[in-house]
Amino acid sequence: MGKKYTIEHEVMYSEGDLNGTITLENLISVAILASEKQTAEMDRGNPYLQKQGLGWIITQYDLKITALPKVGETVKITTEATSYNRFFCYRFFQIYDENGKEIVLIRSSFALLNYKTRRSARVTPEIVAPFDSENTNKLLRFPPIEHFKIEPAQGQPYRVRFFDIDSNQHVNNAKYLTWMTDPLGMDFLTAYFPHYVNIRFEKEIAYGHEIQSYFKENATADKETPVMTQHKITSLDQQEVFAEAQITWQKR
Amino acid sequence: MGKKYTIEHEVMYSEGDLNGTITLENLISVAILASEKQTAEMDRGNPYLQKQGLGWIITQYDLKITALPKVGETVKITTEATSYNRFFCYRFFQIYDENGKEIVLIRSSFALLNYKTRRSARVTPEIVAPFDSENTNKLLRFPPIEHFKIEPAQGQPYRVRFFDIDSNQHVNNAKYLTWMTDPLGMDFLTAYFPHYVNIRFEKEIAYGHEIQSYFKENATADKETPVMTQHKITSLDQQEVFAEAQITWQKR
Repeated sequence: MGKKYTIEHEVMYSEGDLNGTITLENLISVAILASEKQTAEMDRGNPYLQKQGLGWIITQYDLKITALPKVGETVKITTEATSYNRFFCYRFFQIYDENGKEIVLIRSSFALLNYKTRRSARVTPEIVAPFDSENTNKLLRFPPIEHFKIEPAQGQPYRVRFFDIDSNQHVNNAKYLTWMTDPLGMDFLTAYFPHYVNIRFEKEIAYGHEIQSYFKENATADKETPVMTQHKITSLDQQEVFAEAQITWQKR
Repeated sequence: MGKKYTIEHEVMYSEGDLNGTITLENLISVAILASEKQTAEMDRGNPYLQKQGLGWIITQYDLKITALPKVGETVKITTEATSYNRFFCYRFFQIYDENGKEIVLIRSSFALLNYKTRRSARVTPEIVAPFDSENTNKLLRFPPIEHFKIEPAQGQPYRVRFFDIDSNQHVNNAKYLTWMTDPLGMDFLTAYFPHYVNIRFEKEIAYGHEIQSYFKENATADKETPVMTQHKITSLDQQEVFAEAQITWQKR
């Protein structure tokens, strides 16, 4: 296992939604903040990679959420780069509430992108050495994301805005979760919270593009049982898939 | 002048845009965070007001920006409730960079809303006493916002999303500035930064509504002179005006 690194964060009002808990988009942003601080301290941050024409891209997240951090709550976020193989690095994040109880576990997989060739690059020991990650041949297998048939008429369009993009001119990954869950609507989003999220990123989305967000709500026997929703972000013509996800929801 | 209150804030990656500086939306959210902490400490926060069926609404902001806080920078935000009259409370915010230099001055005016009648309520001494604000008959006059004729075809529509709304089920005021500036486009927003912003809020916008954002760019003699843009947020049919603003931009 890798070196652990911990930051504290007080959830701001602007990071929460109507429920008074942090949004999925901001939950992920806060987790990534912890990993950025760790990589910067070890001189393995973006400036180091950019010199080599490289950058990290996130390929998958898997979140187990017992409770969402509340607005005003100060949480601790611990991160570690657990292991790596030739093409992927795996990083875990644990979020602890004010009583020290683990409330969120995020597992993530990153790949290296060569900006010139736009192809994935080898993960070299120099890049990961400071993190004490385990070098392994094993791939971390995330649970599968089941495909579903989209109903073209039910897509909700979103235009990529200037403030959705990051310094690489692509959409910040955390944004996809907002596009995926917004179409569920207020009644749903105030009745349930995401208990398990599994999202896979397929392609980057650039400024000015328009995407469609599709979801399918899977019926349950009664309102008390967990609800599972499936999500897909596609191009307007549905020919390109940018991301897919599966979310299990529980009653708030 | 009122009691001063200061918080520190490290600008997160997710609060910045492509330029690596904080967005206007997040700049305002961080300022409001300081005032919320002060009012909570003095037991004059939202729970206190809600017991009386009241809530603050922001009517106008005026921002003088010398430099925008950068991602990774830790800034200090000082706030004070400077004065009040029967209908308005005025609050100033100063933001200081890491060298202690004042880089942003925000002046704001708040009114009290009675949630039952949806009308403005009197500002009573009990509500403002702990802040040592000056009781005055004077109204703080913000510079006027000039009207402009909108070109109906040029409106950019925005649908109010679940994550745009706050715990009062209305759009967070800071969001208006994102809707106003996004239509200026990437070339503009990477070439200029907002040096002076003057925004007046006319009406609240609720979840599910769709609005139009209009702007007018005022030509200047050459590219080096400051550029002034005018902004208006209206209902889809342009019959209702939700907010108007005027922004002076400088070369980055």
